[in-house]
Amino acid sequence: MRPIPVDDPTDPRLAPYTAMRERDLVGREGRFIVEGEVTLRVMLSEGARFRAESVLLAPERMEGLAELLADRPEGVPVYVAAKAVMSAVAGFPIHRGVLAVGLRGAEPSLALPPAPAPGLVVGLVGLTNHDNVGGLFRNAAAFGADGVLMDAATCDPLYRKAIRVSAGAALTVPFARLPDGAALLAFADAHGLVPLALSPAGRETLTDLTPPRRALLLLGTEGPGLPRELMARARTIRIAMAPGFDSLNVATAGALALHHLAAGRLG
Amino acid sequence: MRPIPVDDPTDPRLAPYTAMRERDLVGREGRFIVEGEVTLRVMLSEGARFRAESVLLAPERMEGLAELLADRPEGVPVYVAAKAVMSAVAGFPIHRGVLAVGLRGAEPSLALPPAPAPGLVVGLVGLTNHDNVGGLFRNAAAFGADGVLMDAATCDPLYRKAIRVSAGAALTVPFARLPDGAALLAFADAHGLVPLALSPAGRETLTDLTPPRRALLLLGTEGPGLPRELMARARTIRIAMAPGFDSLNVATAGALALHHLAAGRLG
Repeated sequence: MRPIPVDDPTDPRLAPYTAMRERDLVGREGRFIVEGEVTLRVMLSEGARFRAESVLLAPERMEGLAELLADRPEGVPVYVAAKAVMSAVAGFPIHRGVLAVGLRGAEPSLALPPAPAPGLVVGLVGLTNHDNVGGLFRNAAAFGADGVLMDAATCDPLYRKAIRVSAGAALTVPFARLPDGAALLAFADAHGLVPLALSPAGRETLTDLTPPRRALLLLGTEGPGLPRELMARARTIRIAMAPGFDSLNVATAGALALHHLAAGRLG
Repeated sequence: MRPIPVDDPTDPRLAPYTAMRERDLVGREGRFIVEGEVTLRVMLSEGARFRAESVLLAPERMEGLAELLADRPEGVPVYVAAKAVMSAVAGFPIHRGVLAVGLRGAEPSLALPPAPAPGLVVGLVGLTNHDNVGGLFRNAAAFGADGVLMDAATCDPLYRKAIRVSAGAALTVPFARLPDGAALLAFADAHGLVPLALSPAGRETLTDLTPPRRALLLLGTEGPGLPRELMARARTIRIAMAPGFDSLNVATAGALALHHLAAGRLG
């Protein structure tokens, strides 16, 4: 299927791209937006978790992406519009000229290889910052975690900015939503994962921890941290820091823990 | 000195706070902007590296900051203005109602304890993203690095957003600017620091590295990475990752390396 030129910002085929920032907030009825080449490549790659509905490119981006587009899954239209048209549709300046719409599909669940296979799952509790959630997906991918569980308060990993910050990992790392921390612990119990709560108040130091063969790494917000009742039911781990500055970004802290827990399984 | 109410956005005493975003880009002739309570507390703390010129607060922030302001260095005026006035001065909405102006002072240099004392310095080459530079300062503080060296291409750590992302560490961690990577290597040579270049193409794996007693950790941009001639003159280190996703944020990669290099000196 050949690229389809579009000149009119009100063309109904571009409807999913309209009022982009406003709809970031209210949701898109089963759709999400991907922006930039890195994340588009991930979404169109073989075995991708989410199906693309359409792609919208500035004409000057066509040549560099020709090969990728030739190999794209069947039935995904590619619309081509000048950046001024793209910007008029989106409602703000589109600098990179690469957008796509993905389809969320059925609400995903998380399948794990059964014990005694090794297992490593990240559990996010109350993380409302899209940069942090995106960063944690990127780190989960980098260190080969099997998936990410999120409580109801944690923000959407398929939010536009979270996908971008994840370098596309939000489109590849399996994830599932559970109601709360107690449900995350029940998941750990059912799947034979040792719950590890990362916290500045942790009792064990990360570097002294022998990585459990199967683990659920629990992460909370930087300010209030993980709920006390969750901490009470997990092994609590802290990262050693310099005196007087006990502060790491949660995605960074998660990377340190994942790197340690995955040691021996990395290339 | 009592807080000084200001109602007029054109009051000359607020001149350093005007057109904030535009002047982020062109610089402020020896001044910089601090925003938010966390960073204000750092700048007003004892032994701070940079002197505050003035503070500008919304009235509703006064009570929570009363103790901090009572202890502030002598001669630092505190202006109080409604958020609407603050926003009119800055040129965009000021949500948190906490601003201050700092004075850069003389161009700083980096003093290190002489060998055989342990030493750990971070060297940034060509890092133009303020989030990454801010994040690296935060990580340098968290793991007790002695300072940060930057080449001419690396962006300003006293940029508004870099200070905020650093959680104030840009105001405490000593830093200095050198012309280029060669000058960073000359610094390492003069100070007995082993140059370590972090790169996905590194020959040694981080976890297998016995931390040198004195090290300069060199970090480059995520795309092009460190210049080849720099890599050739350093020990090159890589972080083990899962196959197929060889991608970490540079501030995160730096945190992993600093945590490993500082091991044994952390609390």
